[in-house]
Amino acid sequence: MIDRGHHPIDPWRLRETELDLDKLAQSESLFALANGHIGLRGNLDEGEPFGIPGSYLNSFYERRPLPYAEAGYGYPESGQTLVDVTNGKLIRLLVDDSPFDVRYGQLHTHERSIDFREGILQRDVEWTSPGGKRVKVRSRRLVSLTQRAVAAIEYVVEAVDQPARFVVQSELVANETQPRLSDDPRVAAVLQNPLQAVSHDSDHEEVVLLHKTRASELLMAAGMTHQVDTTTRYELDVDVRDDWARTTVICELQPGEKLRVTKLVAYGWSSLRSETAISDQVAAALASAKFSGWDGLVKQQQTFLADFWDAADVEVHGHPELQQAVRFALFHVLQAGARAERRAIPSKGLTGAGYDGHTFWDTEGFVLPVLTYTMPDAAADALRWRHSILPEAKERAAVLGLRGAAFPWRTIRGPECSGYWPAGTAAFHLNADIADAVVRYYLATDDTDFMEEVGLELLVETARLWISLGHHDRYGRWHLPGVTGPDEYSAVADDNVFTNLMAARNLRAAADATSRHMAKARALGVDMEEEATWRDAAGAVHIPYDKELGVHPQSEGFTGYAEWDFEAWRDRYPLMLHAPYFELYRKQVIKQADLMLATYWCSEAFTPEEKARNFDYYERLTVRDSSLSACVQAVMAAEVGHLDLAYDYAYEAALIDLLDLHHNTGDGLHMASLAGAWTALVAGFGGLRERSGHLCFQPALPDGMTQLAFSLRWRGVRLRVEIHHRHATYTVHDGPDAAITLSHDGEEVTVTAGNPVTRPIKKRKPLLPRPTQPPGREPMSALGRNHSA
Amino acid sequence: MIDRGHHPIDPWRLRETELDLDKLAQSESLFALANGHIGLRGNLDEGEPFGIPGSYLNSFYERRPLPYAEAGYGYPESGQTLVDVTNGKLIRLLVDDSPFDVRYGQLHTHERSIDFREGILQRDVEWTSPGGKRVKVRSRRLVSLTQRAVAAIEYVVEAVDQPARFVVQSELVANETQPRLSDDPRVAAVLQNPLQAVSHDSDHEEVVLLHKTRASELLMAAGMTHQVDTTTRYELDVDVRDDWARTTVICELQPGEKLRVTKLVAYGWSSLRSETAISDQVAAALASAKFSGWDGLVKQQQTFLADFWDAADVEVHGHPELQQAVRFALFHVLQAGARAERRAIPSKGLTGAGYDGHTFWDTEGFVLPVLTYTMPDAAADALRWRHSILPEAKERAAVLGLRGAAFPWRTIRGPECSGYWPAGTAAFHLNADIADAVVRYYLATDDTDFMEEVGLELLVETARLWISLGHHDRYGRWHLPGVTGPDEYSAVADDNVFTNLMAARNLRAAADATSRHMAKARALGVDMEEEATWRDAAGAVHIPYDKELGVHPQSEGFTGYAEWDFEAWRDRYPLMLHAPYFELYRKQVIKQADLMLATYWCSEAFTPEEKARNFDYYERLTVRDSSLSACVQAVMAAEVGHLDLAYDYAYEAALIDLLDLHHNTGDGLHMASLAGAWTALVAGFGGLRERSGHLCFQPALPDGMTQLAFSLRWRGVRLRVEIHHRHATYTVHDGPDAAITLSHDGEEVTVTAGNPVTRPIKKRKPLLPRPTQPPGREPMSALGRNHSA
Repeated sequence: MIDRGHHPIDPWRLRETELDLDKLAQSESLFALANGHIGLRGNLDEGEPFGIPGSYLNSFYERRPLPYAEAGYGYPESGQTLVDVTNGKLIRLLVDDSPFDVRYGQLHTHERSIDFREGILQRDVEWTSPGGKRVKVRSRRLVSLTQRAVAAIEYVVEAVDQPARFVVQSELVANETQPRLSDDPRVAAVLQNPLQAVSHDSDHEEVVLLHKTRASELLMAAGMTHQVDTTTRYELDVDVRDDWARTTVICELQPGEKLRVTKLVAYGWSSLRSETAISDQVAAALASAKFSGWDGLVKQQQTFLADFWDAADVEVHGHPELQQAVRFALFHVLQAGARAERRAIPSKGLTGAGYDGHTFWDTEGFVLPVLTYTMPDAAADALRWRHSILPEAKERAAVLGLRGAAFPWRTIRGPECSGYWPAGTAAFHLNADIADAVVRYYLATDDTDFMEEVGLELLVETARLWISLGHHDRYGRWHLPGVTGPDEYSAVADDNVFTNLMAARNLRAAADATSRHMAKARALGVDMEEEATWRDAAGAVHIPYDKELGVHPQSEGFTGYAEWDFEAWRDRYPLMLHAPYFELYRKQVIKQADLMLATYWCSEAFTPEEKARNFDYYERLTVRDSSLSACVQAVMAAEVGHLDLAYDYAYEAALIDLLDLHHNTGDGLHMASLAGAWTALVAGFGGLRERSGHLCFQPALPDGMTQLAFSLRWRGVRLRVEIHHRHATYTVHDGPDAAITLSHDGEEVTVTAGNPVTRPIKKRKPLLPRPTQPPGREPMSALGRNHSA
Repeated sequence: MIDRGHHPIDPWRLRETELDLDKLAQSESLFALANGHIGLRGNLDEGEPFGIPGSYLNSFYERRPLPYAEAGYGYPESGQTLVDVTNGKLIRLLVDDSPFDVRYGQLHTHERSIDFREGILQRDVEWTSPGGKRVKVRSRRLVSLTQRAVAAIEYVVEAVDQPARFVVQSELVANETQPRLSDDPRVAAVLQNPLQAVSHDSDHEEVVLLHKTRASELLMAAGMTHQVDTTTRYELDVDVRDDWARTTVICELQPGEKLRVTKLVAYGWSSLRSETAISDQVAAALASAKFSGWDGLVKQQQTFLADFWDAADVEVHGHPELQQAVRFALFHVLQAGARAERRAIPSKGLTGAGYDGHTFWDTEGFVLPVLTYTMPDAAADALRWRHSILPEAKERAAVLGLRGAAFPWRTIRGPECSGYWPAGTAAFHLNADIADAVVRYYLATDDTDFMEEVGLELLVETARLWISLGHHDRYGRWHLPGVTGPDEYSAVADDNVFTNLMAARNLRAAADATSRHMAKARALGVDMEEEATWRDAAGAVHIPYDKELGVHPQSEGFTGYAEWDFEAWRDRYPLMLHAPYFELYRKQVIKQADLMLATYWCSEAFTPEEKARNFDYYERLTVRDSSLSACVQAVMAAEVGHLDLAYDYAYEAALIDLLDLHHNTGDGLHMASLAGAWTALVAGFGGLRERSGHLCFQPALPDGMTQLAFSLRWRGVRLRVEIHHRHATYTVHDGPDAAITLSHDGEEVTVTAGNPVTRPIKKRKPLLPRPTQPPGREPMSALGRNHSA
């Protein structure tokens, strides 16, 4: 857990007032900068010490073999791993003869911060070298949200008490040394020397290094150029080799005198384009960055972020820590998705190479709901990426003997990279999650072009998959046996309720979209008969129900299994590192919300009583060994009236990385949980649901939260929702014709520009008492850690 | 398929009258010699050409890492692979300057044969060298059944038409070159140079090579010595190096003159003993072999085999090919089990390194029933081996969070070597199969010492495992969710009927044995309460039943799954090489008898009508992609009255390797299927069952089989059963007091020495018509291939 004392709470900033060398990896993830295309971990400028060095380009991967002790048909033979590319953020400093290294000399102050309205990582250091020279270093680093290929660093050094000679070495370094991290299978395969030098070039002070990955044969270029400002004489020297380039600036400063080096870095990569094309692309990006200059880049960054926050901010009154955390969370979701532009949004964004940099259902299930309502273009782009890998998904379905498209459980650029099919291939629900994201985006935007170009085909091909996966029994009920739902402590089970409901939704959505886009659907080969099979299967879907217990079994038979001995295992979490899948799968123990997620996403399939009973039942079995759980539990706890519990889960979802709750923040941030913080607040306390094309709210605040306000985009209109304990106010703040019809607690309400609507909130009462969690797995109390500002 | 024209049918011999270079691997398996300790594949004396070279010592293995694309808790990290040890069967020949190689010169005749009453592989060759010299070569090879560490070869060469110089090089060669075989996961991991030279020694003409495996650090020695007989002058030379030893005999023979070289080979290995101890052990074995001489070894072999056949022979009248095949089968079962002596009996015996030389449930389930009634000491030894790995099995259970013993799904010396847990670890039925073998052996022998020393503990520790695996539901029914039964096209299913019934049997057997051996049971920590939990669970075991179909689902829900599209897949067998497990597991398609095996082994749990309906149902779904199926289908087909179908399956089980029906005989013989040929005949047409401690018969012959006769050992008495179409005769042929009380078709009959009993046989009528099989998977007709003698 991070020392809160060195991370003061601030509504708009993440601050670290002291450097903890034992927690470098975590802080590198927290202070990572990204724009969806480039990701730079928050490594110290001088490169050392580090937890995990990391510079990433979205989807720039290396292939690696996937070995099996006993192979089987259809097992993927090779995987993809995100590569730590040429490090462009390195700036070393020598003060007289002493290299600036926080482990030597004397560190007087060391503060780092990111202001979420600026998007700049600032570092302020005051240090006395082993040789006795006191200096100040201020670096400011950004990954441009407006110039996608560009990162920049402003590096300012100052002599404090004595004159000193300063040598600033600004570098590009390929094939950085990688640490051996852990045996935890969730950690990335570490690749040693993934980059082969292709060429290097320098023109005046500007240098470009070209490299190629060995197996995947992707080409990348990194370039840099510098501007130097100082009042004294300096010398500049450039040196380039295969795997590194170095620009050296030397000068002698008097006390109070400063040297400012601005470094502009550009990246490019391609699997198709030629060396010269990539090289030119990087040179162009550098030229463009130079044209803007450091100040221009900073200004663009601020403008971009102001626009984002205007439509995306969430205000939490009464809980400063949660307020900070949810903005931290939204900032990182923005960084992951902003400029991904038809590339995947990985489960860790570009903040680390955990899970090999792969993209899972996290994206469509957890990140896209947030982007859909805050940055809809980014959501569309992510779905366009899915559409771009349809050929691979269709091929995968064919290999598996299925029809339609089977999207990969985990991938970087399309092929299935999962090496354990019961928790990979068998988790077909991913396909319905993608379809659901398509429908949500379309509902929220009315983007018919998107639906025609991308959405319809995604709906059709996933519907086809479901038809080939399901079958009717002798009573005409439609089943999906042998699949894996969201809960990874169960696998290959029959009629997983979540999967069955989502598949039925997918089928209905495909049928509906087909009716609306007949010509395009015919072009995809859909005829009336096929459409009819979709509606029929959806109508006949079997949903197991345990009448005696009055709850839905997560899958057929689940409620008859023995309960996990939670007491005996209370000190061994996460369970998967201590118990075999065999035992986990056959007992009532749940890694993450599954049936509970069904009651959220497929809200209309359950009565309020069923939701209350299901929540009560599953809450007692859920250990939250996955970061995808707390936010869902928050939403459902709020819906069934356990507002305090919802508060705790919202807090957990938001603080997952700031408090390193899963002990692996160092491998990268948990994007789904961060996005889930928004969901916990907006869908939990705001009660946001989409029902028959309507935006619905059912707000209720927990004790201790005095007000919650958030903004949404809905069909081109920005809506602000302000929730108090007794009432909620809906405001539209776009042009004079802007209007939204929404539902407040079941009542249809139309809000127009200039006419905010306020409605009362009924007190919510739970049907059942607050349930307990498995011993040792209770959420932290949100109020217990509520530091007053 | 083997060319039957070159393998004439002979009731007591396997003959090959022509060498087919494309089928060397198959013939090496068929002509393999073994005694349970040493195994020599039927490689040509001169070593080349070969299919797969192979010399094995039971349980002499190398460790190899088991890799995983995504590892999980409890996955075994290293496996064991049978090593091709120092080749002692190599004898090269030069005729003048030409090496004797069947691929060069002219091969006039090449015949190989094994007489099952002699246990000697004989080879007769007439060949003209490229240099034009015609010679005869006769080699006779044996692996001694009486001197466990010894193999011997008599090698005789003769000049036919012209004088010629003969150079015989008899060798020991370590680290033979291994071929790269296939990508089929069932094929062994090929180990390159597994043996490290430790030392070599020669004393006069006798040489010993010592080697050690690199990772497993097992020590082995191979030694050889020779006797030379010829009427002419010869010279003998010995050369020894790290990895080879060579004894060269040179002479010149006139037409009609012969050179006879007798080679005696001895092997020893240990994980504990010193180099000198192993070396001495081999020297002693050589001395002992020399003392017997070739003729002595041959005589001992004949005596041993005569004794075996006297109590084990199965006579099949009316089907010479099946007659030959069942003797071939019994001969190989004998070779696999005879002198294994507390080592494992691998699924391929010692005829090849397929499946890495591992032992599975095949041993207890298929091989031991045969040995129990024909060579009970060998069955006891195999179970003593299981007992010897109890420590590993208990440790494995502990790792899995279970109690008692969890025996390895596949192993050589104890640790779990299975790299795919759904078809390994989850197949817990293995433990009940072991318990069943203990009970069967005890019933058949009354061997109380065995029960006290070995059997009881095996029963108790497996019972403990079951209790920790099962649980009671809210109605008090006892369940075993998430386990894998025999059918490997289903996995991780709930309440597999076979597993549940076998577990209940295991529990009852443990409780019964505990009652009979109170003191010993108390020493194992069993108290009255524990015993009671065993009986209670067994009494409450849940057996799913599909009332509407009137059949037992293989596992809960199975009969509700979609049926496999057999028509679409008719050309893609075995299915597992063409379809993902995901699809196989969720559909009604069966690799091998599972529920059907339950109706055989747990016969008393099903009514005759249930058996008939179950047979009918499952027969249509079973594709027999496993070699463990046909024999079980034979037994149940016979029981439910489909005698012709039973005949076909008996034929398939017996001919599996002679006809290479699974296209992998080259990797080694299918010991379980060969043993199953006996079972198909004895339990199928003889109707042998054990019920409440009684030997029961219910004989019935198919059309075309005129008579079936077999012998059994039962509690020290030899019983001969002779079955005709209308009657059966039971004869006891031991001392004057010998008597057996048995059941014939439900009637209790006592047979005493000198008083054979004959009883009539009722005509058996099936309840339902003969069912069909999946298209393309019908068994060959036994009668269609019935070559008259």
